[in-house]
Amino acid sequence: MISVAVLGAAGRMGTHVVNAVSGAEGLEVVAALDHGDDIAEAARAGATVAVDFTVPDVTEANVHALIDAGIHAVVGTTGWTQEALLRVDEHLRERPELGVLIAPNFALGAVLSMRFAAAAARYFESVEVIELHHPDKVDAPSGTALHTARAIAAARAEAGVAPSPDATTHDPDGARGAVIDGVHVHAVRLRGLVAHEEILLGNPGEQLSIRTDSFDRISFMPGVLLGVREVARHPGLTVGLDGYMSL
Amino acid sequence: MISVAVLGAAGRMGTHVVNAVSGAEGLEVVAALDHGDDIAEAARAGATVAVDFTVPDVTEANVHALIDAGIHAVVGTTGWTQEALLRVDEHLRERPELGVLIAPNFALGAVLSMRFAAAAARYFESVEVIELHHPDKVDAPSGTALHTARAIAAARAEAGVAPSPDATTHDPDGARGAVIDGVHVHAVRLRGLVAHEEILLGNPGEQLSIRTDSFDRISFMPGVLLGVREVARHPGLTVGLDGYMSL
Amino acid sequence: MISVAVLGAAGRMGTHVVNAVSGAEGLEVVAALDHGDDIAEAARAGATVAVDFTVPDVTEANVHALIDAGIHAVVGTTGWTQEALLRVDEHLRERPELGVLIAPNFALGAVLSMRFAAAAARYFESVEVIELHHPDKVDAPSGTALHTARAIAAARAEAGVAPSPDATTHDPDGARGAVIDGVHVHAVRLRGLVAHEEILLGNPGEQLSIRTDSFDRISFMPGVLLGVREVARHPGLTVGLDGYMSL
Amino acid sequence: MISVAVLGAAGRMGTHVVNAVSGAEGLEVVAALDHGDDIAEAARAGATVAVDFTVPDVTEANVHALIDAGIHAVVGTTGWTQEALLRVDEHLRERPELGVLIAPNFALGAVLSMRFAAAAARYFESVEVIELHHPDKVDAPSGTALHTARAIAAARAEAGVAPSPDATTHDPDGARGAVIDGVHVHAVRLRGLVAHEEILLGNPGEQLSIRTDSFDRISFMPGVLLGVREVARHPGLTVGLDGYMSL
Repeated sequence: MISVAVLGAAGRMGTHVVNAVSGAEGLEVVAALDHGDDIAEAARAGATVAVDFTVPDVTEANVHALIDAGIHAVVGTTGWTQEALLRVDEHLRERPELGVLIAPNFALGAVLSMRFAAAAARYFESVEVIELHHPDKVDAPSGTALHTARAIAAARAEAGVAPSPDATTHDPDGARGAVIDGVHVHAVRLRGLVAHEEILLGNPGEQLSIRTDSFDRISFMPGVLLGVREVARHPGLTVGLDGYMSL
Repeated sequence: MISVAVLGAAGRMGTHVVNAVSGAEGLEVVAALDHGDDIAEAARAGATVAVDFTVPDVTEANVHALIDAGIHAVVGTTGWTQEALLRVDEHLRERPELGVLIAPNFALGAVLSMRFAAAAARYFESVEVIELHHPDKVDAPSGTALHTARAIAAARAEAGVAPSPDATTHDPDGARGAVIDGVHVHAVRLRGLVAHEEILLGNPGEQLSIRTDSFDRISFMPGVLLGVREVARHPGLTVGLDGYMSL
Repeated sequence: MISVAVLGAAGRMGTHVVNAVSGAEGLEVVAALDHGDDIAEAARAGATVAVDFTVPDVTEANVHALIDAGIHAVVGTTGWTQEALLRVDEHLRERPELGVLIAPNFALGAVLSMRFAAAAARYFESVEVIELHHPDKVDAPSGTALHTARAIAAARAEAGVAPSPDATTHDPDGARGAVIDGVHVHAVRLRGLVAHEEILLGNPGEQLSIRTDSFDRISFMPGVLLGVREVARHPGLTVGLDGYMSL
Repeated sequence: MISVAVLGAAGRMGTHVVNAVSGAEGLEVVAALDHGDDIAEAARAGATVAVDFTVPDVTEANVHALIDAGIHAVVGTTGWTQEALLRVDEHLRERPELGVLIAPNFALGAVLSMRFAAAAARYFESVEVIELHHPDKVDAPSGTALHTARAIAAARAEAGVAPSPDATTHDPDGARGAVIDGVHVHAVRLRGLVAHEEILLGNPGEQLSIRTDSFDRISFMPGVLLGVREVARHPGLTVGLDGYMSL
């Protein structure tokens, strides 16, 4: 049985985490902390793993406190800078048996589709990205689509693949969308949708499409549980859930 | 048995038409004419219907010659102006028993999806169009997508529907695509594709998608055969194949 | 302003209906009734239209009481037999100014896709249906898919279209799915999905796909509001929401 | 410059291979052999790599002759038994510098989607396979779909994943399709299609879909060229093109 502390337990994601961990075989919630609570309670309750879905302001301090307390950490809070990651990495050298996972995305489908897209991108002449979201979103394209396009571009550059062919000479209204590191990205906004992404790859006579649909933030839970189960087996700092997956 | 003359019979489309008509039950090719041939041969051969897939320069003269010869006409040649259509309409008043069909698109899937999109557009809060083509295409968006977006916009205007909601305030690279009469249109170019279009409609909690894939110009043949079979039952000028369909 | 009574107002659908009507321009809820309440209250509150999402046991009596009270009725409760519909039809002859709408499905996307599929079916050589639902569903295929397949089969029979071609001679495990009135129907069950249906139509060189995704029963609300707004303009009994739509 | 011999050069695939190799940078065709020609000609022409798209009857003898001649072999002919593969493996011990690639499928999209599906399958509660082909196909499901389902089942078994949930108790017409090693497989047959496969994976609140569309056997050529370029760097027998890919 893995004893788990949940930080930010009263938040929207934290509530889901408490439910998911409580319902999972081999896991139990021993401390549900929120704003104002002391991290030391997690240790007193016997937690060996902590899950942090708090806010950018406090997550870094939380992780250092967890390391000091000898507790593995699974962190879904966003906003980590490169410098903050380096400070965690350094701190972990004092406790080489501890694992810390910091992941921007716990949706397994999203994590996998990004990995698959990057792996496939070098083998296809053309690749484009379409992301589709609810119409209340203020930015376009989505952060995930930007990240996907950059990963695709990096993989193609490393393999020496030519840019996707495009004979367009007349596009007065910008129908070809955004170009991110040479990869075309299209953003659809539609009432009824939540968060969706499609990566299209084309060669003469064939197409490969990888699509991920996220309907609900409950979709992060299988990834969180995977993190909780695996973190003790991965000492040191791991950034991105795919570091824990067999691909 | 309907006796058919094919004009432009040696061209790419004409060749397909000759094969399709020859293989269709109840139809036979009695004249296959091309550049330099005399339309009168169609009449001498006993044709009651002619199919014209020639070139913009000669198609108008062909149609008037067919009317004079008392032959129904099914025309797939593009480039007809409003004035040229009016001249045919006027000429047909002298021969009220004759039918002429002039259609920009004989692909049944494309014709139907445009009709369905226009019919559905007034019932949904959001609607966007994605067209996908081979990367050798020089213009974006496609003419069909432009036509679809305008038909959708007209249907929504007539029904007094509000514009699709869109909270986007930050789109530095144009990921939201073209806006045609208020309808967002996205153009994908991918090696391996031919001609594809998807119309996405969204309401709270539901999505309706209408997609048409054209892999080959053979896809025009069922529409051509429908035109040949129906033209005698539709006296006067009809523009667009949907005028012959039960929808 | 249309004054609306909601019957079954405390149920899952009824709660949505109360919220949707309250939030809609030109409509107001004047009575929210539930199990044990008297229909006469709807009349006393001045309702001109009533929405019934109750249970099969009481919906028929409700509709007759509404007719007696001179209130138009929009009914989403399922389980109506042909005989029960005839009794409503007969009762309405006494009140020729009243409208009653009884609809098995208020999701506009689902209603439209069924209509479109039936309209397109006669123009394509092949047609098949795929429905996809959550894995807790006990019956396969879904009632909607059965209904869709039968509507497609009826349209093709009426137009004299041949059965979809199928050269399969070896299918030891039943991969070709169910055959409903000659139309192949496939049922997918997948965690994360809600209710989805795709109708695939094929001709040489082209494909037409019509897909509807229902993520939430909130998707019924635009159809309910359409019914409430239109019912007074459609005297007599109407079965199916498409009777109120311009297609 | 890699000097290539093409065996079965007059066949449908062979013709494509000759064209593709001729047009590829860094490759040249030095011998185009067919039925009745002597493999020794390939050696005399200076070939270092041979591509074999012949027939099951002769492909094994061809490969052994190529090994004897010191030529690397890229083989797309189907019908290899486990015993025949072992004989090649054994023969190659005499020539440890030589590489032989025997691959049932050279379509990169198909190869990748099978790999991705197997990698993802252990992380999702549900997985099903839909294959779609032209209606002249006699067997269902397709060999590729069988292979995919088995690879998915093996990956899930290895990871100790429970069967996909399915509450179906009433399916009188077999809409749930075939069950291959516990994985549901659905076969659609539609005029206009060629060869398509979709793998659907679901978790609470999310779906991952991997789809591959093959429109033309030209789609095998990028995979054949990859094989030709890589075979010399992979001594010994490799079965399956994914052995040459960075995934």
